[in-house]
Formats: sequence, structure tokens, C-alpha cells
Amino acid sequence: MTATLDDLPIRDDLRGQRPYGAPQAPLPIALNVNENTHVISEDVADDIAGSIAKTISELNRYPDREFTDLREAFASYLGHGLTPEQIWAGNGSNEVLQQVLQAFAGPGRRVFGFSPTYSMYPLLTRGVGAEWVAGSRGPRYEITPEDAAEQVRAADADVVILCAPNNPTGTPLPIEVVESVYEAARGIVVVDEAYFEFAPSEAPSALTLLPGRERLIVSRTMSKAFAFAGARVGYLAADAAVTDALRLVRLPYHLSALTQAAAVAALRHSDEMLRTVDDIVVQRDRISATLEALGYDPYPSWSNFVMFGGVEDPQETWRRLYDRGVLIRDVGVAGHLRVSAGTESETTAFLDALAAVGDA
Amino acid sequence: MTATLDDLPIRDDLRGQRPYGAPQAPLPIALNVNENTHVISEDVADDIAGSIAKTISELNRYPDREFTDLREAFASYLGHGLTPEQIWAGNGSNEVLQQVLQAFAGPGRRVFGFSPTYSMYPLLTRGVGAEWVAGSRGPRYEITPEDAAEQVRAADADVVILCAPNNPTGTPLPIEVVESVYEAARGIVVVDEAYFEFAPSEAPSALTLLPGRERLIVSRTMSKAFAFAGARVGYLAADAAVTDALRLVRLPYHLSALTQAAAVAALRHSDEMLRTVDDIVVQRDRISATLEALGYDPYPSWSNFVMFGGVEDPQETWRRLYDRGVLIRDVGVAGHLRVSAGTESETTAFLDALAAVGDA
Repeated sequence: MTATLDDLPIRDDLRGQRPYGAPQAPLPIALNVNENTHVISEDVADDIAGSIAKTISELNRYPDREFTDLREAFASYLGHGLTPEQIWAGNGSNEVLQQVLQAFAGPGRRVFGFSPTYSMYPLLTRGVGAEWVAGSRGPRYEITPEDAAEQVRAADADVVILCAPNNPTGTPLPIEVVESVYEAARGIVVVDEAYFEFAPSEAPSALTLLPGRERLIVSRTMSKAFAFAGARVGYLAADAAVTDALRLVRLPYHLSALTQAAAVAALRHSDEMLRTVDDIVVQRDRISATLEALGYDPYPSWSNFVMFGGVEDPQETWRRLYDRGVLIRDVGVAGHLRVSAGTESETTAFLDALAAVGDA
Repeated sequence: MTATLDDLPIRDDLRGQRPYGAPQAPLPIALNVNENTHVISEDVADDIAGSIAKTISELNRYPDREFTDLREAFASYLGHGLTPEQIWAGNGSNEVLQQVLQAFAGPGRRVFGFSPTYSMYPLLTRGVGAEWVAGSRGPRYEITPEDAAEQVRAADADVVILCAPNNPTGTPLPIEVVESVYEAARGIVVVDEAYFEFAPSEAPSALTLLPGRERLIVSRTMSKAFAFAGARVGYLAADAAVTDALRLVRLPYHLSALTQAAAVAALRHSDEMLRTVDDIVVQRDRISATLEALGYDPYPSWSNFVMFGGVEDPQETWRRLYDRGVLIRDVGVAGHLRVSAGTESETTAFLDALAAVGDA
């Protein structure tokens, strides 16, 4: 067994590539992958465990391929008059996005997004054999409706992905940009609201735009606000015709009975599961204020993380924090780093460590 | 919300397609999708439930992307000197095969298999933008090493998939065919051993051929022998370089913490989990013998199901059984039906119903 990757007949376009690799390091303070660092409360955990336990006596059978209970639960959680037929779910929002791209992109088609944005979009796009086209953002990574529409028209893409708020910058996306992009696009428009629960409560979701827009898809995840990253549950809402299209490309029985039971149980306690959101928003705003006081340049964030500029040597600062047991993220934007808002004590530990290591 | 699938800009090659759709009907006797109809025993179920419950306090964090414990457990279960680096797993063997095709097939490449075979192979192939090339089988759906090698050489495919034993026919695949195909192929050779635990215990697995064959992949599933279809766990063994290649295409964190915990717990009890295999083999052989006595033409099977010919009107016979509460499978081979071996009483119910409805 002495073969290497180069000895194997892998696809030519994969040669020399490296896998996605946020470090999974066992550091005391891990604020690198925008997890919700609050543990699920004991009573909710007990109900989830109990619900899963009940499925084991039927685990010899394939799960409900249509995950009916889960779609009903998501429709009810999201509101906006959505019906279960308009809901789809997958093993994390990455799988949901992959299915969208399999159905609406694929070989010979183009996918467009405003760079810098979530690093998985180009990877998912190339994974289905489509071409990724990167648009640009204005000052402070913001986008105006007019500029967005112009770029989208020029790109003439089959799928446009808008990240609202944007990862890794945290930038809010005004709903007028979604409206304008939808008008300008001839293809599918995906609004990835993975972090939307951390936005101000008065900010309208793209869910409000769904009626009458059959090419619009709004994706969400339970990983962040629901503190459910380990369960891998992403979902979307769209016209029912979109979920019909996804049935053509999904793998049969893609959602396990365990996943379905866990998610349905968690959604029964959505108020309790989302209880931590307010505290995370407070910590996020404390991070921004303190970073500014320390002389860094934090960007406005509607998410559970803060990207900040003014870092002379991001790799060195990252390393010094790592050595103090604090793991944050070098997202590859020159002069910048990104940190997730943790619990109050984790956030304090990060801010103290950063103040102590100084600027590299 | 009155759009239809035709109103949406789906990929041209998906237009007019219908999703994979084995009926999920709540019939008393469901022997249609080759499930293991034996329920997991209570003590094992308790241990699985307990293991899953322990993960919930960390469910706010992403799961171990490398599913280290699970790979160790599979390596130990499979034996043959395999190491964890040689193991890969996914949400069902469909996902594992999809990842293999993403890494080694994709647009512009060809995938070959001997038809009729598992209906997902062509779907998975087209899903990654590759071309499916169907080879042919000899009398009684068997394949000889010489004919197989000749067809594989002529097809010049990037990936060859061998189903051993074959689905939907149940046909054993002599290991000499695997050796011969590997020599004849320039690309990856996948041996799908989803049903291998139901083969005679003296039959050698393709796992024995792995040393020195870096293009060989042996895939398995926990859905059948392990009675774990609802948990969605497929896996493979291959050269460690193959698992490196799969890291390039898998979605990050594709296996949830729930799935990892459930599978590791089940593998701790593999003797107990596999306890039902002997009984299923007895029922399978009883089905074959009785079908023959009833004048049907069952094919030799090393799996947990039997395909049988001599059915004048398969749709009508299927319907008559359905009306009596027995669900089997019309696999689309003219004059044939397929039935899974159930428990002793389920098997009796099927055989009695078939005798009663007579030939359509």
C-alpha cells in the first residue's frame, strides 16, 4: 500500500487540490468555525435523546424518504405562510446547496456570487462541473442594488448565490439587493441565510419575497442559531416546484431516521434552542467595540462572527493566539482575521489574549 | 405558487425525468427494498441510544470531520489487516459511490457496469456529469472472467462498478471476475459488496484482493446485514490514497455526530447485529425452493433477496400481492419480480399469498 494520490486516475481538475481544511484543534477556546459555543440545555437534550431512541426499533427500515414530519416542523418554524411542500432539507446546508447546483447548474453552466464570500460556493460549483464566476463588492464589502443588478446581468449566470449576511465578512445584505438581483437574473437566485437569526429582529428575511418568485430559494441551517452543527441539518424554502426539482438529484433516503428525529425534536423547542442568540449578539457587538478600541478595524456584522482588518501579519497574530489556547480563523483576506462570538467568558478570553499578544 | 417543474431553469438533461421512487407504502408485509426486516435487539438498541445521547452535549460543535473512531471500528470489523487510513464512510453507500464518481469520473468520463444491475449506478453516473456504459451478462445473468475482461477493455471506462452479489438478480460474482476485470481496466474498479454478508461463508471477499491493487475499491453498507438502513451508513475499503482522493470531493463534516456514534455503537455489537443473517439465508433458500415448486424460475442468490422469472404479467401479480398486504418489487425486468427474504412469518405470508393469487 504505497500508492499516492498522484498514482490514481483522479479527475484532471482535482490534481494538486487540497481538501477543505479548517483546523480541528482541541484548543480550550475554539472560535474559528462560527459554531454556537453554547451547549444545548439538559431538558432539551433529554427530549432529543428520547426522540432518537424511539427510532431505533425501526432503524432496520429505510427512513421516510420525504421526511414529512421534518418538513412540517420547518414550515411551522419559518412561518410566512409556508407549506411543507415548499421545504427541503439535507445533511447540512452544504448538501442542500449541492443539490440545488446539481439540479440547476452542472456541466456547461455558470454560478455567480459576490467575492469574498463563503469559500464552499466555488468548491460546490466545481464539484458539479459548473463554472464559478466571482463578482466584486464595493467599499466595506457592501453591495448596492444597482451595482448588483448590473454585475448579475453581465454574468448571465444560471444560479446566483447571495450570502445574507455574508460570510466571512458579516456584511448585512439589504433586501433591496435581493429584489434587484432577482429582477436582473434569468436563473435561480439562492439567498443563503445561514446566519440570519443573528440579524436585527426588524430586518426582513428573503422569505418575505418568496410569493410569486418561483426562481427564488432561501436556505438556512440549524448549525448556527440552533447550536446543532454536529447534527448536520440544513434546509431551504422555495416554490414547491423547486423541491420537485431537488427530488431528481437527491440520493434516495438522504436524511437518516436519526437526523429526522433529532431535528424534529429540536424544532419542538425552537424558543429554547434560540435562547442563546441574544447573548451571542451582545458578545459580537462587544467584540466589535473592543477591537475598535484596540485599534483594529471591525466590519459591521449581522452574523455570529466579526471580521476585522488592520492586522499587519494575520498568520503571526493567529499563531500567537493559538499558542495562548485561542483558535480563530485566518480566512485568507490580506490584513484580516475572523473570530466567532463565544460565550461571555470565551469572548473575554479572546479579547484579553488579543490585547496581550499585541499586533504582530 | 403555481409554478411547475417545467417553468424552472433545471438542467436540460433532467427535463422529463422522474425521481427514484420505490413505493413507501405502509403495508403489513414489506419485502420490496431488501431491508433486513429483523428489529435490532433491545440490549443493542439501548447501547446505541445511550451512545447517541452522550453526543448531544457536544452537538453545538461540528463533528469529527475525519470520523476517526468510526474508521477504526470499520477496519477492525472488516479485518484482512486493513488500517483506518484505508476506510471511508458516508450517508449510505449511495453517497460513498457518489463521492467515488465525483473523484474519479465526472464530466467527460465514462462509467461501466454489467446490466441489469443496481439502478442507482446510472443515476449516480449522470448526476456527476459522466456517461454510463452498460455491458451485458451471459445466460442466467452470469459473467465469465474472459467475457468480462473483453467488455471492460472495449469500454475503456474510467470507473468500472461490479455488484457482488448483483442487485437485482442476486447473482454471485466469482472473485476470478474481479481479478480479471482489474487487469483489463485502466481505471478504478469498485466492487459493491452491499449484500456480501449473505454469501456463503467460504466465498472470498474482494477485500482479499486489495493488497497491491491501488485502483481497487470494495464498498459495503450497514443497511442490509446490520439492519441499519434507517441510519444511512455506507463505507468502503481501499488503498489509503483513495481516501485521500475522496477528501477532495466530500462535503466538510458530511457524517453527523449522531451517525458516527450510532455506527460505532452498532459495530461494538457486530456479532449480535449480524445474528439475523443466518436466518435470512434460510428464508431466502426457502423462497427459492418454494418458487420453484410453484413453477416459477428463481435465480441463484447470494443476497437477501430472490429474483424470479416465469411471471406472465409482473405488474398484475405485483398488484394482486399488494391487495393482500404484501409489497414486493417490480424491478423492470420483463417477466420477473423480486422479493426480499423476511422473517420466517413474513416469508410464509408472501409465499402463501403468491400461491393464492396464482400466476397473472
